[in-house]
This record gives sequence, C-alpha cells and structure tokens, in this order.
Amino acid sequence: MKAMGPVSADFLRGGGDLSFGGKSAEELIAAHGAPLFVYNHAIIDRQAKRYRAAFAGVGLHYAVKANPFAPLMQHMAGLVDGLDLASSGELVRVEAAGLLRPDLPLSFAGPGKTSSDLAEAVQAGVCVHVESENELERLLAIAKLTKQQASIGVRVNPPFGLKGSGMKMGGLASQFGVDHEAVPGLVRRIVEAGAEWRGLHVYAGSQSLSAEAVIDMQRATVALAGEIATEVGLTPPEVNLGGGFGIPYFAGDKPLDIEAVGAALEDTLANRPLILAGTNFVIELGRWLVGECGVYLTRVVDRKVSRGKTFLVVDGGLHHMLAASGNFGQLLRRNYPVAVANRFGDEPEEEVTVVGCLCTPLDLLADEVALPRAEVGDVIAIFCAGAYGLTASPQAFLSQGAAREVLV
Amino acid sequence: MKAMGPVSADFLRGGGDLSFGGKSAEELIAAHGAPLFVYNHAIIDRQAKRYRAAFAGVGLHYAVKANPFAPLMQHMAGLVDGLDLASSGELVRVEAAGLLRPDLPLSFAGPGKTSSDLAEAVQAGVCVHVESENELERLLAIAKLTKQQASIGVRVNPPFGLKGSGMKMGGLASQFGVDHEAVPGLVRRIVEAGAEWRGLHVYAGSQSLSAEAVIDMQRATVALAGEIATEVGLTPPEVNLGGGFGIPYFAGDKPLDIEAVGAALEDTLANRPLILAGTNFVIELGRWLVGECGVYLTRVVDRKVSRGKTFLVVDGGLHHMLAASGNFGQLLRRNYPVAVANRFGDEPEEEVTVVGCLCTPLDLLADEVALPRAEVGDVIAIFCAGAYGLTASPQAFLSQGAAREVLV
Repeated sequence: MKAMGPVSADFLRGGGDLSFGGKSAEELIAAHGAPLFVYNHAIIDRQAKRYRAAFAGVGLHYAVKANPFAPLMQHMAGLVDGLDLASSGELVRVEAAGLLRPDLPLSFAGPGKTSSDLAEAVQAGVCVHVESENELERLLAIAKLTKQQASIGVRVNPPFGLKGSGMKMGGLASQFGVDHEAVPGLVRRIVEAGAEWRGLHVYAGSQSLSAEAVIDMQRATVALAGEIATEVGLTPPEVNLGGGFGIPYFAGDKPLDIEAVGAALEDTLANRPLILAGTNFVIELGRWLVGECGVYLTRVVDRKVSRGKTFLVVDGGLHHMLAASGNFGQLLRRNYPVAVANRFGDEPEEEVTVVGCLCTPLDLLADEVALPRAEVGDVIAIFCAGAYGLTASPQAFLSQGAAREVLV
Repeated sequence: MKAMGPVSADFLRGGGDLSFGGKSAEELIAAHGAPLFVYNHAIIDRQAKRYRAAFAGVGLHYAVKANPFAPLMQHMAGLVDGLDLASSGELVRVEAAGLLRPDLPLSFAGPGKTSSDLAEAVQAGVCVHVESENELERLLAIAKLTKQQASIGVRVNPPFGLKGSGMKMGGLASQFGVDHEAVPGLVRRIVEAGAEWRGLHVYAGSQSLSAEAVIDMQRATVALAGEIATEVGLTPPEVNLGGGFGIPYFAGDKPLDIEAVGAALEDTLANRPLILAGTNFVIELGRWLVGECGVYLTRVVDRKVSRGKTFLVVDGGLHHMLAASGNFGQLLRRNYPVAVANRFGDEPEEEVTVVGCLCTPLDLLADEVALPRAEVGDVIAIFCAGAYGLTASPQAFLSQGAAREVLV
C-alpha cells in the first residue's frame, strides 16, 4: 500500500457520489463526455476571497499558463486585477475569450520572446516584462518603428530563491530575468528611450507550502525593489512580487498558511522604503487559484489481476494528466489524491493500481492505493487537476482521444 | 561541463552546416518554418536494410506510436511487413495516410481498449491483440453482434523481462497482456468461439542497448511461445517477438549490435520447438527504425550571461521535445546530443546551457554543454528526435507556437 495525497475538504462533504455544484461525476460525463476535466468555480471563488481577506491592498494577477480554458479565464477575470501571460499564444487565447478589456491589465513575461511576440504585445497594449538587454533593445526598436508607446517592466533575477520550493527560480544563474545588479541600467535605458517604465517583476520560485519561506521571499523582494528604486532614483509604479503559493498534492503535504503570509506582508509593506510609498504591489498566482478546483474524471475500461496485483485500466491517462504520472518535474513519483467518484463516501476495500490506456509503463496514475472496489464502468477521479493539467500533457501521444473540459 | 549523447555518424560527414539530403538546416527552415522536426528518410532506409540483412525471414512491423507523421508512415509502408497500432486514433491516422491496404497487415495492442475501439478495429480488419479476458469477451460479443470474423492475437505477460532495458514490461505484475499461465485458456476460447486466432504477442521491454539481453529475451520468448502452443495443441500462425532495440541517446551509450542479435535469433529459430515450425515470426520496432532519423531544429532568440553562466534561449522547448528536457521517463536528466546546425563541423568553443522559451525551469534542453559559439539567429539541432518527440510532448503548454515536421 502506498499513500496518496489529501483530497481537498471541498469535496469531502457528504457520502455517495463525488459531486460538483450539485451534479454528480456521472451526470457531468453524460452531458460532456469522458475523460473530463471538471473545474468547480466555487473553489476558485473561495480561493480568491481568501486571498482578498489576507492581502488587503495587494493586487491579484492570474497566471494564465496554469489553465487557459476560456470559461475559466472568463470567470477569473471577474475576480482578479490583471492577467499575466507567458506567450503571445496566451494573448490570442485571452483575446478569443473576449478579455482584451481596458479594465483588465495584461503583462507578458517569458525568456524566449521573439520579435513577433514583442510586436503583438506592444500592438495590444500589453506590458512586457523584459528578460534581457537584447530583448529590451528589440522591444524599443519595434516601438520606435511602429510609433507606439511601449509599456515595459523589468524582470529581475534576484540574489535569493524561494527556499524549499518545488521549483527554485532565483538566487542562481538563470534564463529568467536580468541579474539584479544590471537592472538599474535597463530601467534608465527604458526611461531615456521615452517608453513607459511599469516597474519590476520578481519571481523567485513556485509551489511552496512553507509560510516562512514565502514570507522571507516577499520581504527580500520588497527590500530588493527598494534598493533598485533607490539606485535609479525612481519609484516603480508596480512591483510584481511573483507567486510561489503551493497546494497540497502528496501525502503529508499541509496547506500553505496564507493568512500568516498576508499578515507578514502587511507588516513588510508598512515598513517599506519610502521610495516605494507610491508603488502598487501585486501577487501573481496560478496554481494556488485553480489547482484544487479541477478534477480529472476517467472511466474504468478494464479491471484485471496480474500476479496478485489488481489493475484498473482507465480510458484516460498521462496524455491528459502527465503530472499525475510523476513525469513532470518530480524527482520521485508520488500519488496524487484519487477516488472512485461513484463510491466517494465509501471506505477503502482493496489495494489497486490505476493505469491509463497508453501502451507504456509510464502511464501510471495511482500506484498501489487503497480504494473502494471499482468495476468496469465506474469513474476514477484524480484531484489537483486544475493547474498544469491538460495543457501540460502530451495530448497527441499515441493518438488517443481528446479530453473534455467544463467549468461548473 | 557536462557530457552529451553521441551525434550519429550519419550526420558527421563533412563540416560546415548540418545537412539533410543536400539541404542545410537553414534552407529547410526557410522552406518550412521553425521550430522544425526534420526526418531523414535515408536513415530510415539504412536501418530497415540493416534489419533485413540481420534478420532474414523474420518479419518487420513498424510501431506507429513512435512517430505517426503521415509522410513518414507512407515511406515506412514500403519498408515493413505491417504496422502495429496502439490506439484507434492511430488507425484513423493510418487510414488518413492512405495505408489501409490489403498488403499491409495492421495489429492493435494496448491495455485500455474501449468497446468502440474494438468495434472500429474489427470493422477495419485489424488483428486485435487482447490484453485480458474481459477484453476478449467484449471483442467476441462485438464480432458476433456485427456478424464479422474477428482476427485475434493474445498479448502475453511473460515471466521474464528485458534485462537492463529502459522500460521493463515483463516479468512482473502488469497491465500489459495476460499472465502467461492464463494464455492457453484464452486461446481455446478464441478458437471455440470461431474467431481467427492469429497468434501471440510478447513485448518484454524497450530501449535496450545490450545484445545479450535482447538475445536472452528473444530466446525466452520463442521457448514460451512453444510451451503455450504445446499446451493448446495448436501452431500460432504468428508470434510477435516484441522489440526492445535501443538507440544511443546519452554519453557512453554504445549502439546495439543487431547483427549479433540477428545471428542468435537465427540459431534460436533453427532449434525451435517443432510445433512452431509453421509460425511466422515478426519483430516490432519503432524507436530503432526512426529515432535517429529525426533532428529538432530551433532558433536562438536570446543569448544571455547570468552570474557567469551563458544561456542560449531558443524559440522551441519541451512543448515540442519533452524527452530532451529529461521529463519523460528518465530518473536522472542527461543531455541529448546537440549541435549548432550552422557551425556543425566546428570545434567547441564555450560552455553553454540551452533552454527553451517556456516560462518554467523544466525547459532545459542541454545543460552546460560544449558548443561552437552561437549567436542570436543561429540554429540549435537536437538529435535523436525521430521517435517519441513531437507527439510525446505537451504541445499546448503555455500556448506556444506549433512545430513543423518534414520528411526529406
């Protein structure tokens, strides 16, 4: 028997079928097909509300890369102060979703922006967070050529990282951002060129469950922004503090105490350098806002016993939910939280291994977990599927069927 | 400095630009766009020819899952004796490529076949390798209902695995195939039901570079087929010996000695049990046939130095070539072979890290490798991209641009 991650308390009320806003998994599959990603808007709302209560006065941006499903983005637009993009393709998706609106600022970060990416961003009035001197010069040349005012932030590679985070993105040599000591030079260049300097963007890591680590990172980020501002003698209109807020995926994971983080940030900002007095601070969240709202539903196609081990073979697999197979940034494979959707309230009865339909041993969705007995036709739910799920998976692999998505 | 895998000798002739059938990488990109997967048919031809020379009298099937690009499959159809499918989506792709032909037998294996998958396969005259008793009964019911003759093989979960292989798929409890001791019962059921029993399929592992391991596996497979045939008292028309032939990806990897494997198999078959005298043997290869023919070409968008480390940021990334980032079944990340395409014959001049354009630290394509100096606009080539490349990658991730493919 191997452990699995914790099922969010949002889903644990009541027994019987797993349900989403009053609809069972089976009803949703009947309406939309399977395999199916269900995103529950009530959980997104709850997360946004918790954020607002904990971080009064600090803006909230949604990182589109976490989940660019149009209905989800449209719902999100009513909850956040801006959208952060990681590609010009995301800009296209945002526009297609009807979200190019004056009241919803967009910003664009990413290490490999082509000149055509930059031109599209300037054209759409997106704030570009530049990641190198070369990129800044290309951007300024495009703005000059097209006679447009570019709105530019500088992404900073800070001298610190997010301790114990799933992905450390600062403190080391990095493709992300400009080494902090070179940032003042770029800011001066932006101002001299007559472009609009929007401020700084510092992203030091992601998926942290330690309030202490996030607090330290935010404190260091505010201090660094103060040093850079002092050196250039200008107040940055905006400082994006990054994100880094994790969600519990695996056994033993405890939720991040964001109320503690919010209280500490309030204190940090109350004591910030005077040059940042007029600065607008924002936090950029993707996974924390949407990760827990999503459940991947996939139907059992076969149940077989091989050499004493019971396998449930489902009609989905890693082509829809790569991260649950352990093949996306994890060093050691661990089990995501899973359940039998139509026997959700029942006690575990047996040890089973849930595998996808792909003809590869990598397609392992839950290894030796304890579940109520599931038969062919039953539905397996994999939780924590709201962020970096479908779009972070090799959907064309083995030319298997597409997954559906629905926001409820 | 970290090592990288060996560049295939096919590409090493002559200096200057990396070329494919007389065309440079730059010319191909000008014609087809970038990022670009180039598949060189001459290398596929050479591999097929080597196979035929080494395995006289043993059939050759192509495993479509390795690379389902239509022009590549069409070329392959002239070189092999059949195509092996892993999904009904692959059947659709094969049909769309005009390859549903009486002279090109198709067979279909995979652990999660739905009833609709089975119905489509029967309808198209595809031989189905059943993976469980449940699947067999569903298949027989469909054939009966639709009054069609089903052609059925049994996939065997053998009591042995491919030693030292990248992915061991036998010898243990498995979702693949039917435990060998239960196979005779299924064969009897097929025959009693009046379906056509096509034989056995035994796939014990993949990506082995050890001739000894492959030889042992093939010897054990022939012996196991003999035991099963003897127990049912019937000669299997066909035995699919699986594949398992690896290619060198990483530093220190030596090519598989397939001539040694062929000689040993000839000996094994010369001494096979009499009940297999009339059996047609086939080997199913994907990666070995096409892995080395493919090169992923991606252009340098930025060159930056961060804290003393030089990064080349390219316009492609793990959304096209996940395996090169180390996030697809590798326990430890190692470097694929890479080169600067337009300075292919030149000596290494510096240590660089090649990263993709995605806004995630996972997007690492070559870590601290020695290359000739590359500037913005130059083209990086990643080798061993012909199998499990584009289709095994999360193409929608971060909504970045699509890759192109071309067979030259």
